[in-house]
Amino acid sequence: MEVVKHQKWWGWGEDGIEFTYEDKPKFADFVLTNVGVDVTAAAFARPDFEAVQVAAPQLKPGFRKVLVGIVGEDWVATDKETRLVHACGRGVVDLIRLRRGELGRVPDVVVYPADEAEIVALMEAVVKTDAVLIPYGGGSNIVGALTAPRTLRTVISVDMGRLNQVMEIDPTSGLARIQAGVLGPDLEEQLNAQGWTMGHFPDSFIWSTLGGWIATRSSGMQSDKYGDIADMTRGLRLVTPEGVMVLRPLPSTASGPSVREMVLGSEGRLGIITEAWMNVHRRPAVRTIQGYFFATYNDGLAAMAAIAASDAAPSITRVMDAAETAFSIANGKKSSTVTGLANKAVQRLMTMKGWRLDEVALGLVGFEGTRRHVAYEKGLVDAIISRHRGLGVGTSPGALYDQKKYDVPYIRDFLLDRGIPADVSETATPWQYTTQLHDATVAAAYRAMAEAGVQGFVMCHLSHSYHSGACQYFTFALNDSSDRMLETYRRVKGAIQQSFMDNHGTVSHHHGGGSEQVRWLGEDISAVGVSFQAKLFSGVDPGGWLNPAG
Amino acid sequence: MEVVKHQKWWGWGEDGIEFTYEDKPKFADFVLTNVGVDVTAAAFARPDFEAVQVAAPQLKPGFRKVLVGIVGEDWVATDKETRLVHACGRGVVDLIRLRRGELGRVPDVVVYPADEAEIVALMEAVVKTDAVLIPYGGGSNIVGALTAPRTLRTVISVDMGRLNQVMEIDPTSGLARIQAGVLGPDLEEQLNAQGWTMGHFPDSFIWSTLGGWIATRSSGMQSDKYGDIADMTRGLRLVTPEGVMVLRPLPSTASGPSVREMVLGSEGRLGIITEAWMNVHRRPAVRTIQGYFFATYNDGLAAMAAIAASDAAPSITRVMDAAETAFSIANGKKSSTVTGLANKAVQRLMTMKGWRLDEVALGLVGFEGTRRHVAYEKGLVDAIISRHRGLGVGTSPGALYDQKKYDVPYIRDFLLDRGIPADVSETATPWQYTTQLHDATVAAAYRAMAEAGVQGFVMCHLSHSYHSGACQYFTFALNDSSDRMLETYRRVKGAIQQSFMDNHGTVSHHHGGGSEQVRWLGEDISAVGVSFQAKLFSGVDPGGWLNPAG
Repeated sequence: MEVVKHQKWWGWGEDGIEFTYEDKPKFADFVLTNVGVDVTAAAFARPDFEAVQVAAPQLKPGFRKVLVGIVGEDWVATDKETRLVHACGRGVVDLIRLRRGELGRVPDVVVYPADEAEIVALMEAVVKTDAVLIPYGGGSNIVGALTAPRTLRTVISVDMGRLNQVMEIDPTSGLARIQAGVLGPDLEEQLNAQGWTMGHFPDSFIWSTLGGWIATRSSGMQSDKYGDIADMTRGLRLVTPEGVMVLRPLPSTASGPSVREMVLGSEGRLGIITEAWMNVHRRPAVRTIQGYFFATYNDGLAAMAAIAASDAAPSITRVMDAAETAFSIANGKKSSTVTGLANKAVQRLMTMKGWRLDEVALGLVGFEGTRRHVAYEKGLVDAIISRHRGLGVGTSPGALYDQKKYDVPYIRDFLLDRGIPADVSETATPWQYTTQLHDATVAAAYRAMAEAGVQGFVMCHLSHSYHSGACQYFTFALNDSSDRMLETYRRVKGAIQQSFMDNHGTVSHHHGGGSEQVRWLGEDISAVGVSFQAKLFSGVDPGGWLNPAG
Repeated sequence: MEVVKHQKWWGWGEDGIEFTYEDKPKFADFVLTNVGVDVTAAAFARPDFEAVQVAAPQLKPGFRKVLVGIVGEDWVATDKETRLVHACGRGVVDLIRLRRGELGRVPDVVVYPADEAEIVALMEAVVKTDAVLIPYGGGSNIVGALTAPRTLRTVISVDMGRLNQVMEIDPTSGLARIQAGVLGPDLEEQLNAQGWTMGHFPDSFIWSTLGGWIATRSSGMQSDKYGDIADMTRGLRLVTPEGVMVLRPLPSTASGPSVREMVLGSEGRLGIITEAWMNVHRRPAVRTIQGYFFATYNDGLAAMAAIAASDAAPSITRVMDAAETAFSIANGKKSSTVTGLANKAVQRLMTMKGWRLDEVALGLVGFEGTRRHVAYEKGLVDAIISRHRGLGVGTSPGALYDQKKYDVPYIRDFLLDRGIPADVSETATPWQYTTQLHDATVAAAYRAMAEAGVQGFVMCHLSHSYHSGACQYFTFALNDSSDRMLETYRRVKGAIQQSFMDNHGTVSHHHGGGSEQVRWLGEDISAVGVSFQAKLFSGVDPGGWLNPAG
């Protein structure tokens, strides 16, 4: 029988795959020094499935029968593990709640529709019985967008996993019609088999879906070339309480306020996306990621701003600040080339140039196209980077990054096993404010840690460039295994988010608002902007059936 | 005293500037052959200002006093000419109504606020007195978006012409804060003076404003490089009935359904845009437009699709179909290089290649950047065009196009003087359907003319390219000086628009919906999409104060 893949119930990714530090000689020392925890000591016990209490489902027999009538007996699940898997996303708050068994409201039932007609019928049943519906893709959300509201109404998680096909490719237009429930690897495999790629590779790639990307305004690591998901999404279908919205694929349009853009970022509050027409591209002949060291992160930021203002058009622009550069070296294997680059010879060269080794920043720039085009683009970028005191170090760091890019979330479970909550926050600002925002945010995070009386570590990288600015992505880890772990996390995360608002940043560049970040929305888009969104939500969903705030 | 520039009350552009055929030896013959009208014969009389009847303004003395209290006595106008100028846009329907004196509802009063604070006060006064407010920029709208509703309420036209300054430039981010009422030439002059350009050059450039571009989702002729106005607009301020919406400039964001995108295309129905943060660019070292002849329009379309799928990134892509190529040669001066290119030597070469001269299509591709970059890009494009049987003919056609690009609207008044209504309709489709849409639309237009029993002419060019498709822009002229002129126009325009809907096109690529095109909206974005927009409009504007449909 058809199977829908799920993450492990208590953490990120597949059962059996875990982060290990044992092949990374510098990792344990790095964490001990920077977070104050000895990761080689015994870990806390993993959560015990049997011990987790989940309330009995609030599901009347008559309603279960309705659901079975729509999707079939095999595709209506009320067992504890399925409900747990669908109870939340994979932010550190979710992980802590799962470990503690403090789950709040858990969906009463999980259904797996086979097609749009079944989703239309589910929507009608939800409206008729005044239930609550939460669309579920890969479950990788980290801003609380999958958290059920505290309600007496029946909460239905609609798992989109069976809608996982590339339906058709229009090779003339470079467009593909794709079902919303397809996971990243499955999507790319289907496209690659016909010579195409969508070029969308977010960190969550393995455990996120097309529908989830659209619903959260996702952005992938090659967005400089392929665009954010908002750029790629040219048409879509959305099941709403008043029927199916059909947006045909269009390269551009002036049909009033963009309805397409209302669906993007709607996080399940306007309906369920069933499929979309996406820009797809022939796989490039050459794809390369070049590594560059900069004397400082600021030099790296300035170089990326100069690239954005130039004729060059790389596919990836990325710079790690000094802290993240140090972590990335510490996270390298013994044989790894990043570690190799941090060897004595390179260090001597840097020192000769007058660089301070603790300020060095690693940058990556990606290129795609024909061999000739990649050479031309690399020439443009090399010249700009030279003018910003950059040092080209070839393809090794990029190759390593490419291999390891989807492994990061596993580290969070490893750290949490050792009493270290760790999470991420990202924003975007105009170039003018990238340095100010970076420095203020790092300072705010450390100040919050000091106030909470815990040690911790913050690092950051620039992850996406635009004409007018860039996304900066912060990762932080805290030494707090106490009962106050969640409060400490919220204090530091709050300080980081507030710094975004105070320094010309946005509440989120690509993770979305969810229930966790919504409190900064008014500072971002102003009270009138929040009111515009609220009018749309309440107009389309007068009953609050669609993923109301948890 | 400060002066706000206006177009002539009865037609396009400045008084005294008019189209003439006398320096274009082939023009009169072309029109006689293709439209059946002898333009050298006496023209109809121009409309007589004295003869036009305009109803007395519905403006209570108390309310006039309120308006004067807000903007000052000098900036409240109720005279006939000012009200006429603000009564409509410059579509052919508007021009015909002005000539006939069939104006319908004319704004009762025109106010010229000096700043946002005055606009906030005007908005409050409008809501308090249940009046109707229509924002007015350059007055170039051609889809009826400036037409007042038939209402007993007072109708206020808010002319934005005094808000015409570039307020600041952020050179690090390539962003400029610009007031919404600035006309195109004034805007570029201010930016150019500091070495910058916005790169937005729609056909309406001379008589359209930043706020109008944003409110209609405008697109300029260099959009392939600089993006549509929707891409350039990074932040803005909007005066609404519930206060001022402030969207700070951001390169990208995931703050829920995009409020920025709700304002884009809102055509005055959500409030008044007072200023925006726009992407601006350093003026390029080199800017060139290369001309290419293709054996057929389809070859040109295929070449542009191939360019869009390639590594090349030109600033302009444009191809005229055979009809528009013929017109463009007929519209050339005796000495003009386009005429020159259509000379015997070039024609012999085409014939030798097996081309049919009546099928030949002229293409233009623009390049910008450093000299080296332009050479590189041109090399990529030349190779692709060669593969599509294209013939490079240098910079002359592009130079001519560049000089004449803003003259086209004057032709409409010239033709209307001779009983020829002429107008334009544009759409966008995926590449897959560009040929189908073109051929079906031309056929539908000629069928509609035949049914109406009039001779006429339709021509088309591809004007903007995207990864997944392109905009095609149709121009048509009809031989109907009868009382049924407007009905004939509507029949042909309707056939064209319906063909867009029937052939995978959108209702508009960049002119907007207005009151004239709104009937196709449901076919474009589906009934649910229209409902989403309606919910937003009625939520933000419960009183129908803001530019309700005319």
